[in-house]
Amino acid sequence: MDDLLERLRAALPAEAVITDPDVMVSYGRDMASFCAAGLPAVVVLPRTVEQVQAVMRTATALRVPVVPQGARTGLSGAANASDGCIVLSLVKMDRILEINPVDRIAVVEPGVINAVLSRAAHEHGLDYPPDPSSWESCTIGGNIGTASGGLCCVKYGVTAEYVLGLDVVLADGRLLTTGRRTAKGVAGYDLTRLFVGSEGSLGIVVKAVLGLRPRPPAQLVLAAEFDSAAAACDAVCAIMERGHTPSLLELMDGTTVRAVNAMANMGLPDTTEALLLAAFDTADPAADLAAVGELCRAAGASEVVPADDAAESELLLQARRLALPALETVRTATMIDDVCVPRSRLGAMIEGTAAIADKHGLTIGVCAHAGDGNTHPVVCFDHQDADESRRALESFDEIMALGLELGGTITGEHGVGTLKKEWLARELGPVGLELQRGIKRTFDPLNLLNPGKLF
Amino acid sequence: MDDLLERLRAALPAEAVITDPDVMVSYGRDMASFCAAGLPAVVVLPRTVEQVQAVMRTATALRVPVVPQGARTGLSGAANASDGCIVLSLVKMDRILEINPVDRIAVVEPGVINAVLSRAAHEHGLDYPPDPSSWESCTIGGNIGTASGGLCCVKYGVTAEYVLGLDVVLADGRLLTTGRRTAKGVAGYDLTRLFVGSEGSLGIVVKAVLGLRPRPPAQLVLAAEFDSAAAACDAVCAIMERGHTPSLLELMDGTTVRAVNAMANMGLPDTTEALLLAAFDTADPAADLAAVGELCRAAGASEVVPADDAAESELLLQARRLALPALETVRTATMIDDVCVPRSRLGAMIEGTAAIADKHGLTIGVCAHAGDGNTHPVVCFDHQDADESRRALESFDEIMALGLELGGTITGEHGVGTLKKEWLARELGPVGLELQRGIKRTFDPLNLLNPGKLF
Repeated sequence: MDDLLERLRAALPAEAVITDPDVMVSYGRDMASFCAAGLPAVVVLPRTVEQVQAVMRTATALRVPVVPQGARTGLSGAANASDGCIVLSLVKMDRILEINPVDRIAVVEPGVINAVLSRAAHEHGLDYPPDPSSWESCTIGGNIGTASGGLCCVKYGVTAEYVLGLDVVLADGRLLTTGRRTAKGVAGYDLTRLFVGSEGSLGIVVKAVLGLRPRPPAQLVLAAEFDSAAAACDAVCAIMERGHTPSLLELMDGTTVRAVNAMANMGLPDTTEALLLAAFDTADPAADLAAVGELCRAAGASEVVPADDAAESELLLQARRLALPALETVRTATMIDDVCVPRSRLGAMIEGTAAIADKHGLTIGVCAHAGDGNTHPVVCFDHQDADESRRALESFDEIMALGLELGGTITGEHGVGTLKKEWLARELGPVGLELQRGIKRTFDPLNLLNPGKLF
Repeated sequence: MDDLLERLRAALPAEAVITDPDVMVSYGRDMASFCAAGLPAVVVLPRTVEQVQAVMRTATALRVPVVPQGARTGLSGAANASDGCIVLSLVKMDRILEINPVDRIAVVEPGVINAVLSRAAHEHGLDYPPDPSSWESCTIGGNIGTASGGLCCVKYGVTAEYVLGLDVVLADGRLLTTGRRTAKGVAGYDLTRLFVGSEGSLGIVVKAVLGLRPRPPAQLVLAAEFDSAAAACDAVCAIMERGHTPSLLELMDGTTVRAVNAMANMGLPDTTEALLLAAFDTADPAADLAAVGELCRAAGASEVVPADDAAESELLLQARRLALPALETVRTATMIDDVCVPRSRLGAMIEGTAAIADKHGLTIGVCAHAGDGNTHPVVCFDHQDADESRRALESFDEIMALGLELGGTITGEHGVGTLKKEWLARELGPVGLELQRGIKRTFDPLNLLNPGKLF
């Protein structure tokens, strides 16, 4: 232990090595419920690649596990500390190194905040699309570790599709460069993609080459109210089947609508059983909204409200942004599921989730990136009520079982961490799990990088 | 040997096990020059997953290497047979199992021809974008193995971006399912992506879930003539910097233009040093072409010809399609390079390639997926002239060295095979190579799957 701190202090500036227990506790966990967290031996905040390499060499020499962290906005416990570990926080490596409008790339350090990069790209007429809900605080390194999604994915895809190349410090401190800064490239196995979503278990990302896109026009939003979630899901299927490409296609179930109404008085009738929000950032969004509005009406929408301008669009999106905060006030705590099903099974998923809520006598609100079939059932419970907490956990699991049954995955964008370890094994099966473990051993033979996460 | 054939004949129908040497020779190699090929012990043509599993179990039991093959249209020797191997051709597994317009996916066997899938998708108003030049004959399995590109990649991306999930028979015959049929999913390391571009070295793809897109409107094409390749490259940079999203942006250098003129009398002036083709499949392609035409003129284009309709567009694309056949008539043989550089370095790449041609006294025509910075320098030589062949090989290598120097990759879309093995090591460096080999060992510990390819 003395040896560990001595080596780290020799390699890093004094203020980059934290051992104050009160401060260390604040680095203990991400935003997931029900995930164990321990007390680290030390928290380090390197500012350079060389410092990260020194930390990993020390960790390897002394066989100390390392838990990499970004802004700890994750929802699966992947960034939770374990007892005696080194917490390696990358938040001080927060420089945007380059934005190149001809090559349409950004080169960034891992601690850059998602929204900071987005705004910097905007200054060049470009856009970095992935937009997790935590975009104002989450880091690019965390986004890469989690393979984050967001609202715009239905049109623009997820984080993985924007990561072109990486600099990674390996467990033993060596530096690996993967990928490219070109538009295309197929030289060898795609190691870049392997790191995306690896939750810090294969190496420490210290630099990323990210793809950018031309900034699209401002989107125009439409809201449609339905008397049933099934009807709203029919509308989603019709919109996608007809070849539309919305820039956003979100669904909130009746439980969520009522929670939002109670919190912010959005003026939505309490009889609304599903609210669908669709948006287009095309050359003629009004025409696209008109077509989609027709499909909503045909599917049974009781009300269709297209926004006339950006300000009205923003108002409609407010309801969606309030969904999680509103559901958090229903009881004292929440667990957020992240099941993604083929969008043709979205109706069955939402219906099944309602049945699970009934069975356990719980409130479970569902908001969904409907165009992607990615549902976030939010299980509301009183964390001081042992029986209710047990039922919450059971329903959380039953929702994942339902997702797998419907041909889906246990995680569309939040990752596995410790929260869904058992479920990952179930989704992958024994052969897949064996190969995943083999890859882990190839990169981290001593099992020092975020051990106990994923599997 | 007798044991091998006996086991294979027990597991496969008689006509699926070929040992006729004359027929086997025809399965010897793909379309790459200068790549060694051996005589297989046997060629097998399974029709079911179970038959592929039986072949791999036999290969593992008897320690016989297996070379998987699609249509052998590859350009790197990746599908070339080795002496005594089992050639495992997937061309008989050619069923489209499902096309789902709501989920926008196709489920296919590996032997499906790219163009057959495209046309089937069109019937549902959908599109499978990746369009290698060999699209009328190449297979989806081959496309996945190579991570193929094509003309539309500048807007729609490469094969990798459309592969959502795979069924793979492993070296020991076990069946692995990777990925998903959902729009999103982050459950564990991305094994799906690892197989894309792995050139049959990690497993045998027997089924693929592919993403489809709504079919875009027909594209409208513009041709612009320039007095220098540098000016054309300036236009490419300006087009991309201004935020345009062409569905095609192709460049042919003066050597290529003259070869095409000689072959087909396209009426292009012999003073043209670069021909740029841009296309848009947007809602108002004429307006986009007008804007891009202005940028071409500003960059120094001597002539800008926008097509008025689909028929004229098709005529303009003829020139591009003739590029390779025309260059093949310059001498008796060609070697096709595949260097991709950041598009901001495209001018330097083409200029440097011309200098290499001068130095070696050779004709090297360049056509390029210019919007992606992906150049295909075609080295023309007389294969019966030893000295000219040597110079061709040298210039082929110098072109790759130049690409790396400019921050590019040795292969944008053709892959490594045996042709670029040494260059892959150079691009990846020792750390990257070590990890790639570790992954290979995890999947194929006996080194039976396409040994000697990649590295």
